[in-house]
Parts: sequence; structure tokens; C-alpha cells
Amino acid sequence: MDPDLSKLDAFLAEAGVDGYLIEADGETADQRYLSGFTAPDPFVTLYTGETTLLVSALEYGRAMRTARADRIERHSTYDHRANVAEYGSPGGKYRTLAAFLDSHSADSVAVPRDFPVGTADGLRDHGIAVEADPDGVVGSIRARKVDEEIDHVRATQRANEAAMARAEDLLVSATVDGGTLRLDGDPLTAERVKRAIEIELLAHDCALDETIVACGADAADPHDRGSGPLAADEAIIVDIFPRSKTSGYYADMTRTFCVGDPGETIERWYDLTYEAQRAALDTIEAGVSGSDVHDAVCDVYEDAGLPTLRADETTETGFIHTTGHGVGLDIHEHPRLSEEETELEAGNVVTVEPGLYDPEVGGVRIEDLVVVTEDGHENLTEYPTELAVGSGG
Amino acid sequence: MDPDLSKLDAFLAEAGVDGYLIEADGETADQRYLSGFTAPDPFVTLYTGETTLLVSALEYGRAMRTARADRIERHSTYDHRANVAEYGSPGGKYRTLAAFLDSHSADSVAVPRDFPVGTADGLRDHGIAVEADPDGVVGSIRARKVDEEIDHVRATQRANEAAMARAEDLLVSATVDGGTLRLDGDPLTAERVKRAIEIELLAHDCALDETIVACGADAADPHDRGSGPLAADEAIIVDIFPRSKTSGYYADMTRTFCVGDPGETIERWYDLTYEAQRAALDTIEAGVSGSDVHDAVCDVYEDAGLPTLRADETTETGFIHTTGHGVGLDIHEHPRLSEEETELEAGNVVTVEPGLYDPEVGGVRIEDLVVVTEDGHENLTEYPTELAVGSGG
Repeated sequence: MDPDLSKLDAFLAEAGVDGYLIEADGETADQRYLSGFTAPDPFVTLYTGETTLLVSALEYGRAMRTARADRIERHSTYDHRANVAEYGSPGGKYRTLAAFLDSHSADSVAVPRDFPVGTADGLRDHGIAVEADPDGVVGSIRARKVDEEIDHVRATQRANEAAMARAEDLLVSATVDGGTLRLDGDPLTAERVKRAIEIELLAHDCALDETIVACGADAADPHDRGSGPLAADEAIIVDIFPRSKTSGYYADMTRTFCVGDPGETIERWYDLTYEAQRAALDTIEAGVSGSDVHDAVCDVYEDAGLPTLRADETTETGFIHTTGHGVGLDIHEHPRLSEEETELEAGNVVTVEPGLYDPEVGGVRIEDLVVVTEDGHENLTEYPTELAVGSGG
Repeated sequence: MDPDLSKLDAFLAEAGVDGYLIEADGETADQRYLSGFTAPDPFVTLYTGETTLLVSALEYGRAMRTARADRIERHSTYDHRANVAEYGSPGGKYRTLAAFLDSHSADSVAVPRDFPVGTADGLRDHGIAVEADPDGVVGSIRARKVDEEIDHVRATQRANEAAMARAEDLLVSATVDGGTLRLDGDPLTAERVKRAIEIELLAHDCALDETIVACGADAADPHDRGSGPLAADEAIIVDIFPRSKTSGYYADMTRTFCVGDPGETIERWYDLTYEAQRAALDTIEAGVSGSDVHDAVCDVYEDAGLPTLRADETTETGFIHTTGHGVGLDIHEHPRLSEEETELEAGNVVTVEPGLYDPEVGGVRIEDLVVVTEDGHENLTEYPTELAVGSGG
């Protein structure tokens, strides 16, 4: 993929700096996007209209073969070993990097906000002006996906659907014993469902650090990953956010299931959350603000008399998070669907994930992943939205 | 675990600063170590003799339940929402953080080298002195493990051994057809072996981002992960570095296998590498320098007439990496076994991984994980070291 970096050119011109500098490993989204290279250890990318990588001897061969860059240079070109011998580590490294920038006539650079302060100050000591880019220009370029990237996200969401189906299968196949789910003679635990999800994702060449399979009070904390035996008659939140090992692109989906009788409150919450999600989706199109989408969700919940952070910033129950976030090389990226004003653009890929939470009741969340289009959206999620699963018998 | 932070107290006194500040997610090793908390999004830890966390509302409940900290505070205590409304993001965040530091009388802080420059400069604008800690004091504290941490690493290495055994089983069971390994009617590929490794690790509650299963020329590049059908009569490097999902501690091990006839060069390289590893292990004890261990490896290879980076910094074949690295909450941490002078301490956990590489021949590497003790080392690796596997028949 050849990213359109005209926005970065404009940013550099506006900021009046010579280049954009990244020092990060290749799993870092901005780094991977700009360099087209992945490596486990940090390396350097300089953009000055052309893209130049500065890598160690160990990475040089692979960088030459695989990186998307106009030039690839080695530390040794800048007397790195002698620098480290004389000035130690990290002092020698800063000297090497300053010489590299000098050779590319970059006396001033903008850097991402999360650029390492040690390197920034080290370069400043060598007379390089280093300015943190407050808004994350590479992140804002990344937010607008080209078709190839959308295909990557779609492929990861297909893997995600296969994993969600594995989880649902286990719930459907479970029996109930004393209020607890059992399968093949053992309790059906959150851990067991997560393992099945992980194995299915591996088979689709996807990785994931975390999955949420949370039941009852666990599910009432949106960041609780869930643990222990799963219960009948309670809402079980399954939230999966895998990343393709090949493309590096994430996907994201949540479903809420119940084996047995969810009871009136969970059922009402589920219907409301579905309604809130539809209202949000109806709002989405290029040109609207992320906050309009978020407001659509809050309106549904507040009209039903349920608490939201919008109405009461101290509430610990009800709708206690934002409506969604961008998904791409990062799992959380631009744009946000929150109180923040952000104009949506065609090509944005965002989650739409309203939810309700209360430790006394549990949690309900429904999350789809969609692409913003000029006149609406395309839903990348092909998975049914149904609360009741299994016989519970 | 209650870490001994007396070295951090001494560092702060020496540096003449009021506190040590970290802003990072909970997967970042220094953050996890100091806060005893994990969270997917960045949060703040301030150490001033006591440890205080600053977290979002979303993380507050879980932090109260699980973090090892003297105090946990919320953004809302410092008018975060109003700050963001008035000064935007990230400006409002810097204001919130400055108010937090002010309330803890921290006018000056040291930060890790990889602390985000945006936040550092934002705090400086509010009159806080922010100094990057060049040597990574928390990393140097982490390098010296207590028994509980060593047990965590050992448990992860047990999982690693189970995974290595799965990989070896597949190689042992393979047949050879036209020089290529086959199993159950299909080619035995690097991807298939990696998948078996990953599934075994999942069953042991371990995660991993990458595994190396590299054969022939792939194996000659130490950072190549390997792909495609595996060949008979060639060296196959299997390097596995999983992390326990529960404890967060890594382990690391490499074995090199050959199905069929490795030939004279690979056999000689293997024997030399084994000898180099034994020489390195013999050198290890508290008080010696990491460079002495590295020198022991280089001596063996150079005496045999093989190139090393020590003898020729431009060589692209032979022993082209360092001898080892610390392993703990990070996969690469202090101390290094390299040209660098670093005094080993009892409680250091380090890899010892000599290797030889040449695209014309392939690669050989043998890696064990050991704890440095007062008078030697304890090897945490219980896995045979044998090149020849399978009948190749």
C-alpha cells in the first residue's frame, strides 16, 4: 500500500519544520504505516517528502527486502559503534541520530506525542529543534482508510465472526446445573470460552492479547476480562478484538448472550441497546460529527430514563463509556465517537458499541464495526444480534 | 510482590528530584512493576517514596481492587473534564497532570527515557522540571529478581518446554518427500509448527506475538520468523519467547533441529555453538561482567576460525548478535551479555544464546535461560540439546 502523505507534507510546511521523525518498534501503528516495516526493536523513520529508515545491522537485510521506504540506512554509516564507545548508551545513540538528521538537512523535526523524551532531549542537546505534534497528524491520515486497508479490516472481522461463532456454539451446547453452565462434564468457564476463541483466531492467522468473556457483575465493568464459571439467566458479554498477524489490521465486535431466562431488566436493556445502536448507525455519514453519533445513543438511553455520563459525569451505572473508536493498525485510534467534536470522513472505520452496566444487574453491549461512506456507512460485521442462545435445559 | 525500591529512593535523592513519573499502559514493564496494575490504556504512576496512581473513571474500580499502590486517584479529582473542555486534548490533560503533581508537592520529576515527549513538554510548560533518567533505574531494579519473580519465569519456561516438545514431535513424525518434510499428507510448514506451538502455549495460559521457526536461508537471518515448507537435511531454528498472561513474565528458549543429514558444516557449527554456550555458562556468576560472558562465546568461535562481530564489525556471517539479554516483564531487558561492561548480580535472569549464520549454510542457535547466583548460575531450562531428530525416512 502506498499511503497518500499529502496531508503530512502540508503539516510540515505549516509547522515550518524539515521533517517528521518516528522512533518506535514496528508494531507501533504510526511507525508501521509510515515505514511499511515491522521489527521487534525500535528503529527510526524520517519523512522529509521522502521516507528514510535508520536501522541496525541486524535489521538491514530484512528492511531492504520488505520495507516501503525510499532509502534505508544503517547505524554504522554514522559511526555508531565509535559514538557509543565514546559517549556511552544512550548518549552515543543521540549523536548517531543527530548525524543522520544532519545528513538529511533536518535541523528541525516534528515528532508524535509519544516520541521518547530521552531521544527528544538528546537531539535538542545537539541543536535539533524537536516539537511534539499535538494532534497526531499520522494518526489522522491513518484514520481515512483506502480500499486495501478496509479489505484488511474486513478479513480480520471475518476471522472474528468465526471466533464469535465458536463462543456461541459452546454456550448453545451448554447445560445448566444449579444455575451454572456445564459442558462435557465440566463447568463452562470464561477461560474455556476464551481459549476456544483464541484457537479459532490462530487458525485464521490472527493474534489477540485479550478477550472479554464476562458474566454477571464482571460484565458490569467494561474493562473486566471475566473469569470463572459462566451462569445461566445472566448476560454474558463476549468482546473480541483480534489483529491479523499478516496485515497488522485489527477488527472488533461484541455480542451479549444469555443462556436461559435473562429476566425483564436485561431484556429491556438489550432492546434499548439495540435501538441505541441503530440510532447511532442511522446518524453516521461523512461530514457529521462523532459527537452527533454519540448523542444519538445518549438520547435513546436518557429518553428511557437510564443514566449516562453525558447527563451525569459521576454516574457509575448506565452508559459509562463512549460510543466508539476508530480501528485500524491500532485497536483504539481516530476518530472517536464521543463528546469530542470530530468530523467523520469517508473511509473512517469505527466501532459503534453502546452498552449499559450495573453491578446489580450485569452488563449488556452490542458492537459492530462500520466504514463511514459519503452518504452513510457500510457495516463490516456479518453476525446476528440475538440475546437468547441455547436451551438452558 | 512487594518490590524493594530503596534503589529508587537513592536515585531520587541523588538526582535531587521530588518523584519518579511514569505514563504508560500496564503492559509496559516499568509501569507494571511500579504500579502493580495492568490496563490497556496509558495511566500515570508517581513514586515519591509512596506510590500514587492517577487513572480514568473507567479503571478506578479495578485499580482499587487490584493495584499495588499506596493511593489511587481519579482524573475527576483534578477537574479533568473542565480542563479538556477549556484547553482541548492534550492541553487539558497536561493541566490535570500538573495539578496532580502539584498536590503531591512534586515540582520536579525524573521519567523513563521512553516517557512521551508531549507530556514532558506539556508539564514543563506548567513549570514542572522533567528530566529523562538516562540509565533506566526501574529497569535496573527489575533486573534483579526476587524468588517470586524467578518462579514466574520458571513457570513460563515450563510452558515453553511443552511448546518446544510439540514442535519437536511434529518434526520427529514428519516424513521426507523430495527433500521436503510432510506430515499427514500435507507439507510440514513453518506456519503449521508455529500454530502447534501457539496452541500449546494457550493451553498453558501463555501468549506470544511471534515465534521463530526458520529453516535454511531464513534461519540465517536471526530476526526472520520463517515461512513455508520445512526441508530435510537443513538446520531448523525454533525460538519461542512466550509471556504468561497471568504473571506477565516472559521466558525464552531456542533449539536447532535437523531431520535427516545435517552435513558436516551444520554439525560442526552445532558442536561449536554448544561448546560456546557451555563456555559462556561456565563464566557466569555474580560480579563478572556481561562482556566476559560474551567474550567467552567469541573466543570459541574465533579460535575455530569463524567470523564474529567482535573481530569484524562489518561481517554479515558468523556470530552476528550478542550473547544474551535479561528476561522478565520485558523480553529484552537488563542486563545485556554483550560488549558492554555490566556487572552481573545474583537474581539476574539472562538468556545465553550463541549462534552462527550464513545464507549459504543456514543458521544454528542454542538458547537457555539461567539465573545468576553468587557462585554460578541456575539453569531454568529443562530441555535436551540435540540436533538430530526424526528418521528422515
